[in-house]
Amino acid sequence: MDLATLIGLISAFGLIGASMATGGSIAAFWNVPGLMIVAGGTVAATLINESLGQVLGAMKVMLQAFFLKKASPQETIQSVVDLAAKARKEGLVSLENEDIPDDFLARGVRLGVDGLDPDAVNGILLSEMRTLKARHERGQAIFKFMGSTAPAMGMVGTLVGLVQMLQELDDPAAIGPAMAVALLTTLYGAIIAFVMCNPIASKLEQRTKDEVSQKTLAIAGVEAILKGENSLVIQSKLEAYLSPAEKAEREKAAG
Amino acid sequence: MDLATLIGLISAFGLIGASMATGGSIAAFWNVPGLMIVAGGTVAATLINESLGQVLGAMKVMLQAFFLKKASPQETIQSVVDLAAKARKEGLVSLENEDIPDDFLARGVRLGVDGLDPDAVNGILLSEMRTLKARHERGQAIFKFMGSTAPAMGMVGTLVGLVQMLQELDDPAAIGPAMAVALLTTLYGAIIAFVMCNPIASKLEQRTKDEVSQKTLAIAGVEAILKGENSLVIQSKLEAYLSPAEKAEREKAAG
Amino acid sequence: MDLATLIGLISAFGLIGASMATGGSIAAFWNVPGLMIVAGGTVAATLINESLGQVLGAMKVMLQAFFLKKASPQETIQSVVDLAAKARKEGLVSLENEDIPDDFLARGVRLGVDGLDPDAVNGILLSEMRTLKARHERGQAIFKFMGSTAPAMGMVGTLVGLVQMLQELDDPAAIGPAMAVALLTTLYGAIIAFVMCNPIASKLEQRTKDEVSQKTLAIAGVEAILKGENSLVIQSKLEAYLSPAEKAEREKAAG
Amino acid sequence: MDLATLIGLISAFGLIGASMATGGSIAAFWNVPGLMIVAGGTVAATLINESLGQVLGAMKVMLQAFFLKKASPQETIQSVVDLAAKARKEGLVSLENEDIPDDFLARGVRLGVDGLDPDAVNGILLSEMRTLKARHERGQAIFKFMGSTAPAMGMVGTLVGLVQMLQELDDPAAIGPAMAVALLTTLYGAIIAFVMCNPIASKLEQRTKDEVSQKTLAIAGVEAILKGENSLVIQSKLEAYLSPAEKAEREKAAG
Amino acid sequence: MDLATLIGLISAFGLIGASMATGGSIAAFWNVPGLMIVAGGTVAATLINESLGQVLGAMKVMLQAFFLKKASPQETIQSVVDLAAKARKEGLVSLENEDIPDDFLARGVRLGVDGLDPDAVNGILLSEMRTLKARHERGQAIFKFMGSTAPAMGMVGTLVGLVQMLQELDDPAAIGPAMAVALLTTLYGAIIAFVMCNPIASKLEQRTKDEVSQKTLAIAGVEAILKGENSLVIQSKLEAYLSPAEKAEREKAAG
Repeated sequence: MDLATLIGLISAFGLIGASMATGGSIAAFWNVPGLMIVAGGTVAATLINESLGQVLGAMKVMLQAFFLKKASPQETIQSVVDLAAKARKEGLVSLENEDIPDDFLARGVRLGVDGLDPDAVNGILLSEMRTLKARHERGQAIFKFMGSTAPAMGMVGTLVGLVQMLQELDDPAAIGPAMAVALLTTLYGAIIAFVMCNPIASKLEQRTKDEVSQKTLAIAGVEAILKGENSLVIQSKLEAYLSPAEKAEREKAAG
Repeated sequence: MDLATLIGLISAFGLIGASMATGGSIAAFWNVPGLMIVAGGTVAATLINESLGQVLGAMKVMLQAFFLKKASPQETIQSVVDLAAKARKEGLVSLENEDIPDDFLARGVRLGVDGLDPDAVNGILLSEMRTLKARHERGQAIFKFMGSTAPAMGMVGTLVGLVQMLQELDDPAAIGPAMAVALLTTLYGAIIAFVMCNPIASKLEQRTKDEVSQKTLAIAGVEAILKGENSLVIQSKLEAYLSPAEKAEREKAAG
Repeated sequence: MDLATLIGLISAFGLIGASMATGGSIAAFWNVPGLMIVAGGTVAATLINESLGQVLGAMKVMLQAFFLKKASPQETIQSVVDLAAKARKEGLVSLENEDIPDDFLARGVRLGVDGLDPDAVNGILLSEMRTLKARHERGQAIFKFMGSTAPAMGMVGTLVGLVQMLQELDDPAAIGPAMAVALLTTLYGAIIAFVMCNPIASKLEQRTKDEVSQKTLAIAGVEAILKGENSLVIQSKLEAYLSPAEKAEREKAAG
Repeated sequence: MDLATLIGLISAFGLIGASMATGGSIAAFWNVPGLMIVAGGTVAATLINESLGQVLGAMKVMLQAFFLKKASPQETIQSVVDLAAKARKEGLVSLENEDIPDDFLARGVRLGVDGLDPDAVNGILLSEMRTLKARHERGQAIFKFMGSTAPAMGMVGTLVGLVQMLQELDDPAAIGPAMAVALLTTLYGAIIAFVMCNPIASKLEQRTKDEVSQKTLAIAGVEAILKGENSLVIQSKLEAYLSPAEKAEREKAAG
Repeated sequence: MDLATLIGLISAFGLIGASMATGGSIAAFWNVPGLMIVAGGTVAATLINESLGQVLGAMKVMLQAFFLKKASPQETIQSVVDLAAKARKEGLVSLENEDIPDDFLARGVRLGVDGLDPDAVNGILLSEMRTLKARHERGQAIFKFMGSTAPAMGMVGTLVGLVQMLQELDDPAAIGPAMAVALLTTLYGAIIAFVMCNPIASKLEQRTKDEVSQKTLAIAGVEAILKGENSLVIQSKLEAYLSPAEKAEREKAAG
């Protein structure tokens, strides 16, 4: 897991917990029925529109986003340059038993070695990339849905509490605590949405962009290998996908 | 109906009902005039901008989304591979009396057998897919409209109740219950929007994406059959539309 | 006018009126200065950004959307098939004096008869369709603007009322009624936006989609006629634009 | 300035002013510090993200939108038809000293007379149109930013006022007026956003659409002149950009 | 740093500070725990979805946006015209040792001098521009995320404070100040979002547009140089990217 994510989670909940504790007991903020209606209601509303398989798939995509190491574009470029050089010297068939660490790149090269023409390989890799993107966007959509439903469920809980309180105003001393309890669900909804669901949805979005740009790089690389392009041209083409910082790193590593 | 949908619906309403019951009688949350203004007003506002036919069509699309079984991409791929093999061996005409379970695939093959060129068939299938997509999006639009109108009608009901309450402040004991009743419509609006309309709209959106990707697969398959492509190439092309999980399933089934 | 629209309008206002009447006199909800600031202010804000001509044009587009009969795609398909058959038998020039009910289709055919090549005709019809779409979207934009301005003007009215009330808190008995009056403008804003402007904007959006898909069908038809395509091919191409229900209707009519 | 704009501005402020005056003195709504924090804060926040040049440019674009006369598409069509007829009779070079009122059209014709091929001229005019569109969208963005910042600054002012009021609750008689003053900034924010910034942003958006469609017409016209098209074809092509009302006007003028 | 930015920042905070001071002591608005939960919570939530590297990268992009001088399109045009003239006279190779101030332009020219064909150079420069745009959009996304999270964290803080206050209503004199403190976090959230994060996000958006249009100009210039176009044609092509004001400036400088 990213160190930043861990720090973020701990400090977000720590700050909120600390501010709850300063006013007295943190236990005053713990209300199981309220938590049930907000967290349970949000999950229930999500199950209405998504099959269990989709929800579990979204969890898997989320865990990958948090725990899997990001691929390095510099390594992919180096692989492509090496493979292209070998293909030009010894022919495309020589790549048959090559061990290529990047799965996606490897699949593209193998299709080319099997005799498919570069355009067909390109089309297949593009379809695969689009399928991956659609799968990730489905995961994002689930967390975005939860992020917009949680505050609504919090409001539902607060309204239920307010209606109950307003119907029994006999004991003025009970009004304050009853209203406090009613507000708790709104608080839960805001925390679930803004500290959990929305950051996860945003993380998935960024991760998808990273994967798509990594795969775009690999597709350009496969095309260059299959078309037998000159390795200097390949290098220029692929380095255009790097940020200045990544380019500097690559030059340091190369140089 | 999806098991998850059923579980979701039951638990969402169960959780809300339970939280209403904890504070005393659930009957306090039952208010027919309030329900009329929110649910009735939402439906009425929808009828202003949609013909009855469109609203009924949206209901039908919704029921299909909840009750129809999703097509399996793996089966479509297997059909395409089998049909392509037969067409290459015995000619395209041999597919004339073939029984193809996927209607859309069958229609595409039949157009090709009737002698239309692959590009024309492609164009026709694309038009059909776009027509289907537009029809589904119209259904989504109706539920999204209802999902944004219901909270507004809830607010209208609450404002009406507040105005009535504020004009007769003589009896302080009546203020609480009157305000409780006024808040009920806001509660109804939130439940209708966030537990019913929005999940349905989201379900339709996901279902449309599934159908479009299934049809995209079938269109690619028809093109491959009509162009007489090699079945290994077809397999590579079509499997690019599967997720890793679906690919693994297919390999297990094949192996 | 669509029956559904009429039912929708009557029942929406009926429900709101009924809920107002239950609490006593409906007259309590009638406040001319409040109505002036919300309805008048919304119209005034719209005039700031739209010329009178544009606003009147939007009204005209709206009336058309509510009162004009929708074109039938089945009739357009039948016209195209008949015209194409005649053109193949007797030559394109034989269509010169043909009486074609669909104006847009007629214009396309006439341009072809006048000797323009099919691509030029296609370009001209596409430009016309885009011009129509832009004009309708301008109309939608006006109603959407009003739908987002009305609640804001309602809030302005309520704030004005609250400020006036808060500055003279001497008479406690006057607070309730004064606040009730202040809330009325928020209520007016919500009704104007959610029961009037938003449904109209949504109606215009759907109507525009209908017209664009009808015109797309006609453009495909004109192209097929001018290129002298086989009527079976034309039929397959154009029926791809129909929904299953429309296709069934057409088959019943034809059979 | 458009008559409608003037009427709109006067009646919007008139209605709001009248509703303020009905409750007593309009002076109660005048609060210089509150106005400073809302109007000044909005302008200050805008200066953070826009250079002075950009803000002044946006003002200029706004003034043009309100004061410059809209170009007439009918006149442009007539110019194109006349120029095309002359070019076909006397050669393209004969247009060299022609006086063309529409600047953009004139520039296109001059580039063609100077010997650039039609595609290059087309590309240059498209770039110019895109540059103009980007400049106008920057202006819109500034007013949209102000329209979303003003209510936020109003809320900031109200919160500041509430905090000050809540810390000194000793004198109950002062609570009402203090709260009234606190609410004034929210009122100012709403008026600035909904009666000034948003209508201006919307006006700029519509004006940009008008200019782009006018320039699209001119670009089609230049292409037709340089390619030496038949004037009947040109007329059909260009009239497709007119609305039915504009077409009727043109026919009346021509006939 | 832009003078306008500095003026904007100082006057925004000055105005808010002044309005706080008018009501008594500005110290009443200083609440460290409240600031911690809003500012700290916003940063923590951002770290959940962004790696530390990304957040630092966004800071760097922001500083560049505020401190780096904007490139001048007029200078780029002049460079291109001069280089094209030299290339036409002395051959493309003569540009090898040319000192070109605009880095991006220089890289394009060097690739051409190295023998890549114009289309490949074009493709490489486009990829670089897209990579830059994606990097800047990531930065914008971070500030937009913070701008939408800060008000939510403010609301969380206010709800925590309200719940604490409502549970201890024994001392009526403490209610006002407790509520004032609770409202402070909402105030902090609004200031952080609307005076800091949103203007920065907007600045980055505008800056990205500037850079993309500057790079688009350079790409068109490189293409013109490599294709050996006539310098009058180049001038016409490139000046189409200038606004009227920039064009006037350039003419003054040239004339």
